[in-house]
Amino acid sequence: MTPTDDPMMEPRYQELATFMRAPFRPDLDGVDIALYGVPYDGGVTNRAGARHGPREIRNQSSMCRTINHASGINPFELCNVADVGDVRFSEVFDNAACNDSIEAFVRRILEAGAVPLAAGGDHSVTYPVFRAMASPAEPIGMVHIDAHCDTWGPFRGSKFHHGSPFRLAVEDGLLDPHRTIQIGIRGAQNWADGWEFSQRSGMRVMFIEEFDELGVEGVIAEARRIVGDGPTYVSFDVDGLDPVYAPGTGTPEVGGITTREALSLLRGLRGLNLIGGDVVEVAPPFDPSGNTALVGATLMYEILCLLAEARTA
Amino acid sequence: MTPTDDPMMEPRYQELATFMRAPFRPDLDGVDIALYGVPYDGGVTNRAGARHGPREIRNQSSMCRTINHASGINPFELCNVADVGDVRFSEVFDNAACNDSIEAFVRRILEAGAVPLAAGGDHSVTYPVFRAMASPAEPIGMVHIDAHCDTWGPFRGSKFHHGSPFRLAVEDGLLDPHRTIQIGIRGAQNWADGWEFSQRSGMRVMFIEEFDELGVEGVIAEARRIVGDGPTYVSFDVDGLDPVYAPGTGTPEVGGITTREALSLLRGLRGLNLIGGDVVEVAPPFDPSGNTALVGATLMYEILCLLAEARTA
Amino acid sequence: MTPTDDPMMEPRYQELATFMRAPFRPDLDGVDIALYGVPYDGGVTNRAGARHGPREIRNQSSMCRTINHASGINPFELCNVADVGDVRFSEVFDNAACNDSIEAFVRRILEAGAVPLAAGGDHSVTYPVFRAMASPAEPIGMVHIDAHCDTWGPFRGSKFHHGSPFRLAVEDGLLDPHRTIQIGIRGAQNWADGWEFSQRSGMRVMFIEEFDELGVEGVIAEARRIVGDGPTYVSFDVDGLDPVYAPGTGTPEVGGITTREALSLLRGLRGLNLIGGDVVEVAPPFDPSGNTALVGATLMYEILCLLAEARTA
Amino acid sequence: MTPTDDPMMEPRYQELATFMRAPFRPDLDGVDIALYGVPYDGGVTNRAGARHGPREIRNQSSMCRTINHASGINPFELCNVADVGDVRFSEVFDNAACNDSIEAFVRRILEAGAVPLAAGGDHSVTYPVFRAMASPAEPIGMVHIDAHCDTWGPFRGSKFHHGSPFRLAVEDGLLDPHRTIQIGIRGAQNWADGWEFSQRSGMRVMFIEEFDELGVEGVIAEARRIVGDGPTYVSFDVDGLDPVYAPGTGTPEVGGITTREALSLLRGLRGLNLIGGDVVEVAPPFDPSGNTALVGATLMYEILCLLAEARTA
Amino acid sequence: MTPTDDPMMEPRYQELATFMRAPFRPDLDGVDIALYGVPYDGGVTNRAGARHGPREIRNQSSMCRTINHASGINPFELCNVADVGDVRFSEVFDNAACNDSIEAFVRRILEAGAVPLAAGGDHSVTYPVFRAMASPAEPIGMVHIDAHCDTWGPFRGSKFHHGSPFRLAVEDGLLDPHRTIQIGIRGAQNWADGWEFSQRSGMRVMFIEEFDELGVEGVIAEARRIVGDGPTYVSFDVDGLDPVYAPGTGTPEVGGITTREALSLLRGLRGLNLIGGDVVEVAPPFDPSGNTALVGATLMYEILCLLAEARTA
Amino acid sequence: MTPTDDPMMEPRYQELATFMRAPFRPDLDGVDIALYGVPYDGGVTNRAGARHGPREIRNQSSMCRTINHASGINPFELCNVADVGDVRFSEVFDNAACNDSIEAFVRRILEAGAVPLAAGGDHSVTYPVFRAMASPAEPIGMVHIDAHCDTWGPFRGSKFHHGSPFRLAVEDGLLDPHRTIQIGIRGAQNWADGWEFSQRSGMRVMFIEEFDELGVEGVIAEARRIVGDGPTYVSFDVDGLDPVYAPGTGTPEVGGITTREALSLLRGLRGLNLIGGDVVEVAPPFDPSGNTALVGATLMYEILCLLAEARTA
Repeated sequence: MTPTDDPMMEPRYQELATFMRAPFRPDLDGVDIALYGVPYDGGVTNRAGARHGPREIRNQSSMCRTINHASGINPFELCNVADVGDVRFSEVFDNAACNDSIEAFVRRILEAGAVPLAAGGDHSVTYPVFRAMASPAEPIGMVHIDAHCDTWGPFRGSKFHHGSPFRLAVEDGLLDPHRTIQIGIRGAQNWADGWEFSQRSGMRVMFIEEFDELGVEGVIAEARRIVGDGPTYVSFDVDGLDPVYAPGTGTPEVGGITTREALSLLRGLRGLNLIGGDVVEVAPPFDPSGNTALVGATLMYEILCLLAEARTA
Repeated sequence: MTPTDDPMMEPRYQELATFMRAPFRPDLDGVDIALYGVPYDGGVTNRAGARHGPREIRNQSSMCRTINHASGINPFELCNVADVGDVRFSEVFDNAACNDSIEAFVRRILEAGAVPLAAGGDHSVTYPVFRAMASPAEPIGMVHIDAHCDTWGPFRGSKFHHGSPFRLAVEDGLLDPHRTIQIGIRGAQNWADGWEFSQRSGMRVMFIEEFDELGVEGVIAEARRIVGDGPTYVSFDVDGLDPVYAPGTGTPEVGGITTREALSLLRGLRGLNLIGGDVVEVAPPFDPSGNTALVGATLMYEILCLLAEARTA
Repeated sequence: MTPTDDPMMEPRYQELATFMRAPFRPDLDGVDIALYGVPYDGGVTNRAGARHGPREIRNQSSMCRTINHASGINPFELCNVADVGDVRFSEVFDNAACNDSIEAFVRRILEAGAVPLAAGGDHSVTYPVFRAMASPAEPIGMVHIDAHCDTWGPFRGSKFHHGSPFRLAVEDGLLDPHRTIQIGIRGAQNWADGWEFSQRSGMRVMFIEEFDELGVEGVIAEARRIVGDGPTYVSFDVDGLDPVYAPGTGTPEVGGITTREALSLLRGLRGLNLIGGDVVEVAPPFDPSGNTALVGATLMYEILCLLAEARTA
Repeated sequence: MTPTDDPMMEPRYQELATFMRAPFRPDLDGVDIALYGVPYDGGVTNRAGARHGPREIRNQSSMCRTINHASGINPFELCNVADVGDVRFSEVFDNAACNDSIEAFVRRILEAGAVPLAAGGDHSVTYPVFRAMASPAEPIGMVHIDAHCDTWGPFRGSKFHHGSPFRLAVEDGLLDPHRTIQIGIRGAQNWADGWEFSQRSGMRVMFIEEFDELGVEGVIAEARRIVGDGPTYVSFDVDGLDPVYAPGTGTPEVGGITTREALSLLRGLRGLNLIGGDVVEVAPPFDPSGNTALVGATLMYEILCLLAEARTA
Repeated sequence: MTPTDDPMMEPRYQELATFMRAPFRPDLDGVDIALYGVPYDGGVTNRAGARHGPREIRNQSSMCRTINHASGINPFELCNVADVGDVRFSEVFDNAACNDSIEAFVRRILEAGAVPLAAGGDHSVTYPVFRAMASPAEPIGMVHIDAHCDTWGPFRGSKFHHGSPFRLAVEDGLLDPHRTIQIGIRGAQNWADGWEFSQRSGMRVMFIEEFDELGVEGVIAEARRIVGDGPTYVSFDVDGLDPVYAPGTGTPEVGGITTREALSLLRGLRGLNLIGGDVVEVAPPFDPSGNTALVGATLMYEILCLLAEARTA
Repeated sequence: MTPTDDPMMEPRYQELATFMRAPFRPDLDGVDIALYGVPYDGGVTNRAGARHGPREIRNQSSMCRTINHASGINPFELCNVADVGDVRFSEVFDNAACNDSIEAFVRRILEAGAVPLAAGGDHSVTYPVFRAMASPAEPIGMVHIDAHCDTWGPFRGSKFHHGSPFRLAVEDGLLDPHRTIQIGIRGAQNWADGWEFSQRSGMRVMFIEEFDELGVEGVIAEARRIVGDGPTYVSFDVDGLDPVYAPGTGTPEVGGITTREALSLLRGLRGLNLIGGDVVEVAPPFDPSGNTALVGATLMYEILCLLAEARTA
């Protein structure tokens, strides 16, 4: 532990906060894995705040380091990892236009040959990400950790909200429901609409009770069985975790996954054909302690390890 | 998800906060299950604050919805559920008089033919509830989740305090100790008095270590064995949970039950002859995040599902 | 202080929280002054959260009581004061539609013959209120306390945002700029646009430095001179206060008005022809202590006293 | 600043927290000024928590030091100052018995020849203090800073509550209303009862508006005129301050005294015949930042300077 | 529960806060087990704050009581337990000098024949404790719970920091690596240096993943196997726990041990030859709720039970 | 308010946080005014945390905008303003070495022809800044706002601490005490040492009581008289403010300057020969709300306006 010029080696409270102290490369030049922020919560139906997620995840992510203690992976050695900045929105009050901005931003990442890993933002942002990454000809699979299926219909006049992204993605042929697993689902609902859409479309819906019965190893096995070896996206909504781990979120549901389970679960996805991911619904105003964002950063780091290994496989 | 006139379908931050957005029916007219508040903490021996519990549980309970994801029960369809208001106290500094006010309030609920489900208040409130619900001729059983047995003797000149309700109830012949199970007991004590009373009187005392060994399924089996098919009350003190789930309480004890375990445990009581319940010791001043009250509201919702099913069985 | 059936006389942590413990009268029947909530923050450009304002102002307003210690006014004796509920929004993601919902709600209040007093919500809500209350034939005047003029042009594709309500109102002929005073203005800006519109249109813009020089008595005199005896609305944005008094707001500006000054200023408006008012931009997620909402409730109470006296003058 | 064995000279986060790092002398031996705690809030009518006041004031008071920057007084050089511990209560649920415990504790201090300076506790504790310190033959005067007159009648069956101490003291002939000034009074009330009792009995009631007009120098002059040179007690309820300075209190009233004014006001009492004092209503659960207790400790220090000078005059 | 003169029997918010309400005996006279504080965080590499640990642990430890619910041990009956105060530092900015102060303080405890149990302070304090307790001739073993091995090399010019104590202790021959187990290790690192030193020197390093596989009973067995019956120290860094249990710490690592596991683990060490212990890295500024310090106090109480039993074995 | 590519025009929660959204120019190329951070609190004697100041001030400074509402100055138009990064420390535990690192960093800024404006860090950082900026041949003057004179002698073995910078600077001939004014001094002390050094050396010490008497205009006049037209530095310790405005600081002193006064005071320094400045002692861990850092950022913005005008005069 001698001092160096490498920001990774400096005291963690120092300098500008980029995602995991990675270099800032908005030009995407030579970037293998693009860490980006989507400061948008225009799709929430209850408590807003996720627009502040990327900023605070950047801040807390200075706590992250390089070598994964469990797998030994050092993603920063395997790949050129960079913070490529945030999606910019020109019409912030128009959900459809914001979706377009997100899609365009991700297209640019893909065109630069980089793998996208996002810090949300509410969960509605994953739908435009999919519009950039997939097509009916080449739909993708997904490992989705969440308390909610996010496959509900329009809400009060809009189809673009944080309860609908995966219904839209299936309807557009972007997401293959048969290669999709939803893990950690729970919480009462006023309609069974979303649960039913997920199941009817062919998704594997794993409620928290089944998660409990199978244990993490069983869940991993089932996830691997479902997504197979096709291209797969990892979407982690922090409300999949119990609210004690992630109080800073818009729609907390009591009785969720622990972080220890979540980290094991993510590590169980090694070797899959992973093509991108996101951590969403970190809403800092509801957690002044910063712990939710630290959890979010840690989850991003684990997904980064997966993506780095997948890219260099 | 189209807008309606049903408050249950509206954005959750809207309008007056009633328990679970149920209609407010202080007249009890046609009510099957009466959700009520007991804003009283005159019986605490350490940190007060549970007097603010009902208000904050109402607030957070707007997050609750109707259809239970695990059991499919919709208590609002099965029964006429209402918020019937709070117990009013005329002599707020006199614990005996406050007990009388609680007893009278619950008698009125029972006379209206409704099942009572309370938001406390400190745990001393359950004793006057029992005075209204039971008699030596017809004692009741109890599933009691708590860190403390609450069967201690008088404290500094008063027998009415939050460490004594179940000793008083047994002594009065209202609670059948042989049909009582106390789950999650832990934390050092200065006297063994309460532990001993519980065991001597015939209660089944399950310390957290035994809970751990049996697992939730084992605990459920034991609880069902103890209470049998007689009339049974469910009393949930949130300090039975680990303090990370319920920091907003007066007497936190490190090393408690998780909410995931608690929800499974409650669901395991389906089919019992349940006649009422309470969630007590939510003390909002000790949890500015509101999460303790959200947990309290979620526990109330689960007990509500049980009571609704029991009533319509 | 003997107990009664009047909720105003009960312990303040008890029962449902209505605005100032006033009766809940969504039917508006016989209501003189209608306290209502506008749980909407779709117009904010930075930090959302004011959608939770009405709920938390109701909660904290239980601390309010009846007889004004300074003026002796008891608004609850002078008038029939009621909580008439919240504006309901059918299309929550469409700012224009939300404006329509607000306008319709206020029209209903006016048609019932009541005076409207709102708890916001962000400041964009005042424009649709004016659409209900005024017309080019009968424009109104305003005493406006705020850090910002809120007379800016369109923001990123929308004219409906919390920086524009009074520009829209002037452009529509609803607000008479010559009978408008803006008090407490401060904070750097990136464009002078709003400041210039206010001054060019004829509004009296009083920056905080002038406020300091004049003292509260001088400010009152100037406000009375400007609005004269025509119909006048009072709009209080809590960011007009210094952030220490109102940290729970979306756009805090350091160096603002104290609450002691604000209360004196409001009391100095007695005898004016006041026809309605609002307290806006209380964003509870940014103030877990609840003090911002307590301040908001206290400001509402003072405006209520003014409106009650004006109505019965 | 070289290290010494004097706790006053050590880092402030070190060792047990006594009031202002004074020696702990529960035996009162040789003590001139006795700093004591009254961990009791059995008299509050709304939010409890002041029972935790002495503990947290002790903690924050480690920030205090010895030489008053404004007056040059070093009370620790003038007098033997000690922390003499807390009042112990044998019947914690019985307000009359608790009053007796307080009276007995203060009598012991007086018999030891020491001057009492208390950290409350709610304001009801000052009445039993007066029972120990005064008699109808030798009533005392008071400088009382507070938002409330605390001269109200019985509340819900009890005359012992935090809104009544000075009415009881006047009725018992312990407090001379003609030598009593109440400063900073404000906040709406539901009855004028207390205001009227104060004024009718001959107290000088100074509402915050008059405070504002007179300025601190004028207030000091008036206070000195009222209490004259008879024996005088200083009672400081932190809710006399604006809630931003003292959010951790049971009954905050918006629009109060600043700490800068309060410190100047207290220093203006030099030379009076001061015989004791208290700082009450610090309720730490409502201020996790600790600032209210720091303010309380600072006020105690200023009163200590006054008492030390008075005793050695 | 009748009142007594025993502070242990008094309301817990009362009087000065000593560790677990034990008597304060800075003279060490007749003390069997010495509870002491080390208010020092000069060795942290990221977030300071542990200097405030002893004060806040004392405060929260008033919640502790005497009889262990699981083992029945009452350490206060077995031994003369006292709070012996804090290490005093004469040169607070010089890490080597501070280490000397700690060593001298512990030597004094040992010379008085007492067993030392510390509340840190950052983890660097354990190295000077070992200098007082061990020697190359008589090295000790250790059960070490932590997220980090704390066996790293010099950091930016200093070998004395909170990442190095056990490397220094091994290098000095004070700690026997073959009788050392490190439990709960996790979190990415920038160098493998510390992990490698631990393993190369012969320590048993148990990462959290292995902890998960073995279960608490398996971990206990392995710990007992490693330390055998030689003299053994217990060092508990609260960042070994998951951050939800101990957010108030300098280097939180997501995904740690639960308190329920930790308490079971500690109880599993009964019967070993335990000679001292510490609980370190409680940094109160990062947890305004006080829960981290309550957890720290509870861990100290469990270690106290072990030490009391060991001493009287 | 149409969207642009200028980060200043974007939503404020977006992208990396630099000081006031200024461009990041660690190479100093073409920079007129260099905003830099000093993440160091190795000199504090009580509560650490200011090492996190630059990070959080950057975060909150996104709330700042360009055109000063009071003076009309737009510093970003007048000068090339940049965030030039943080001082890097190679030996973080050695106060003398850290001072050298700070001095070297500021020398580099000066050599690049830029004016330095720092975000601390504790107040000890100003001494090495002066070593870079001044010499006995060319000492500088200072406007110093603070609760403490910071002219105390060595503390526990070190002369480098946050209570000594200006004594060291005077002793080295870097700071001209006759051209130095210290404003807002208050708070009890254990020695008069620092107060006496300041006065004996010729500094103008203005205690808060005199500040109150003179009023802001009087204070400005006196400050201008003292510093005259020689080169002058502005050093603002946020503990000069009352703790309600800046709770997030290491040594709060009750009864300080308001932000409204502070902003007026700073603006009163227009036209002086200002050559640099700093805002120090923002310690974010003690203010989870972020308001202290927002205040710090706002003070930096005001000083920036002064420096920009001075440079272009």
